[in-house]
Amino acid sequence: MHNPILVELTRAAELESVHRGALVLARANGEVLAAIGNVERPIFPRSAVKPLQVLPLLETGAADRYGFSNRELAIACGSHSGTPEHTAVVGGMLRLAGLDAAQLGCGVQEPLDGDAARQLVRAGRKATALNHNCSGKHAGMLATARHRGEPTEAYWAPDHPVQLRIRRTLEAMTGAALGADRCGIDGCSVPNWAVPLTELATAFARFVSGEGLARARAETCRRVARACWAEPALVAGSGRLDTVAMAKWPGRVLTKAGAEGVHCGGFPELGIGFALKIDDGGKRAADLVAANLLAHACGDVPELPPPTVLKNFRGLAVGEMRPSAALVGLLAKCRLRP
Amino acid sequence: MHNPILVELTRAAELESVHRGALVLARANGEVLAAIGNVERPIFPRSAVKPLQVLPLLETGAADRYGFSNRELAIACGSHSGTPEHTAVVGGMLRLAGLDAAQLGCGVQEPLDGDAARQLVRAGRKATALNHNCSGKHAGMLATARHRGEPTEAYWAPDHPVQLRIRRTLEAMTGAALGADRCGIDGCSVPNWAVPLTELATAFARFVSGEGLARARAETCRRVARACWAEPALVAGSGRLDTVAMAKWPGRVLTKAGAEGVHCGGFPELGIGFALKIDDGGKRAADLVAANLLAHACGDVPELPPPTVLKNFRGLAVGEMRPSAALVGLLAKCRLRP
Repeated sequence: MHNPILVELTRAAELESVHRGALVLARANGEVLAAIGNVERPIFPRSAVKPLQVLPLLETGAADRYGFSNRELAIACGSHSGTPEHTAVVGGMLRLAGLDAAQLGCGVQEPLDGDAARQLVRAGRKATALNHNCSGKHAGMLATARHRGEPTEAYWAPDHPVQLRIRRTLEAMTGAALGADRCGIDGCSVPNWAVPLTELATAFARFVSGEGLARARAETCRRVARACWAEPALVAGSGRLDTVAMAKWPGRVLTKAGAEGVHCGGFPELGIGFALKIDDGGKRAADLVAANLLAHACGDVPELPPPTVLKNFRGLAVGEMRPSAALVGLLAKCRLRP
Repeated sequence: MHNPILVELTRAAELESVHRGALVLARANGEVLAAIGNVERPIFPRSAVKPLQVLPLLETGAADRYGFSNRELAIACGSHSGTPEHTAVVGGMLRLAGLDAAQLGCGVQEPLDGDAARQLVRAGRKATALNHNCSGKHAGMLATARHRGEPTEAYWAPDHPVQLRIRRTLEAMTGAALGADRCGIDGCSVPNWAVPLTELATAFARFVSGEGLARARAETCRRVARACWAEPALVAGSGRLDTVAMAKWPGRVLTKAGAEGVHCGGFPELGIGFALKIDDGGKRAADLVAANLLAHACGDVPELPPPTVLKNFRGLAVGEMRPSAALVGLLAKCRLRP
């Protein structure tokens, strides 16, 4: 795994740290438009595949039965910040489906949002499963099980019908065979399958363009994407890249981060999907690579997180975080705009 | 910078993330005992050189004049967790020298310790400069300036006598020429100079063995090390590697972490120093490499942080973090015990 450097961090005149990784852009037919690093090694996409994992919620009819709007769909494919707004949407979603937060199997996580975390402490309350960044996805899984009359216990187990449907959906979208040897357990306890970056990028090209998909599935993908564009604050949270980018460019980019330095997404107008993984799992680098790619395709990098000027505790500029020459070169070769 | 993989993270049967880096063990005469990766490239040691930066506090006579005990010396070369115990020691140190917390130039940082951070929020109080992990170092710098009759304003500037003395000390200990081209500004706003890992390891070998040092400096180094061994909880904090290791093996290992994946230290009985840097700045990897090295030299890896079994939000074991074959091989070749 000798991937090139994609991100550099400097301090004064010296390079302080670097992040290596791989990135690929592909069309729905699997054609690779641009690639850097090893894009054939299976990687765990983690939360970056939530937009694919949510499809059975709609395709089984569960979302319509329980009257889920764009808000419930957006948070079901989001990694939210655990704010009161986020937990209220997930709580409402559970109520619509006749479910309870006690049934969530994601575990308990402090809110990712610092203000929300401090608010809990001030109120003398503990975080709950609702605060977990994946609680929307889990509420969607539970609602699907409920709608289908399947057990709502152990809905996270790899052999539960909810997870088997998601596996089949991921296999169809990516074209990858997802055997037990590729199966890991995610931070929120549901299965996560390792898939090569090229197949992830291809899946997202299909997702955003509808190309190569049956008409009904293409329409479902489009509905999920529209929900994310209508409610970008529910897909991530205030100040976070996915929210900022989709609020800025609704209809032009679908983007979703995953843990350990993964980012996937696609550009509907271009019919192109992308997938990237930072070798060391560094989120700061995954965000910077994704921000540079989105800006290259849609315009205006400086307004996207993460910050490129690195400041210290007194607010002094001490260095910068920047794309490597290799990444700049790849993007330059890759004409995404007319 | 094509350093080898030192740390691997797995999820189920697959490799999920890796950390590359460089590590060197050296004697006081500069002899390299073992090395992996590029150990000649200058790297910013950040807080890992605090035990060297503290020497002028003692050598100017400031520490004795103000009656600093092991507790003040340990926190002056520590990166503490910002707990009430830590801030009380730094506050007391400032009072002993007739100084005030308002004079600290490190900036404000939330306590690294989660409980301490929540305690502040519950009390409706904001973090102050005292909570900054470097406040002990800054109190020592201020005390030195005060003792010498130098301005206590802008004591952090590279041309202030306090910083010039530290630069000369670092040059003498490492043998490196620390010109302006090597000078960066640290997170706490004082200068930090890039030094090759080999020269850092050599400096720590000198520090812990006294070899190659004038008798007075050797005794000062020994006094600093004894302070760290007497008060390891003030060098870092509860559950953190430096504190756990020095509480476990006082007199056998001096160890100090720095930001962006740096760790330095030495083994007094062996006359050996070490220095390591993770390319991507990953703290989890720097801690794991250091823990494996310390355990190799002193025994018992499983009781040292960080955890090697990776657990998710429900406490399920989902993977492991482990030293790479290259690191295991290097340590095996390198006989540190009889």
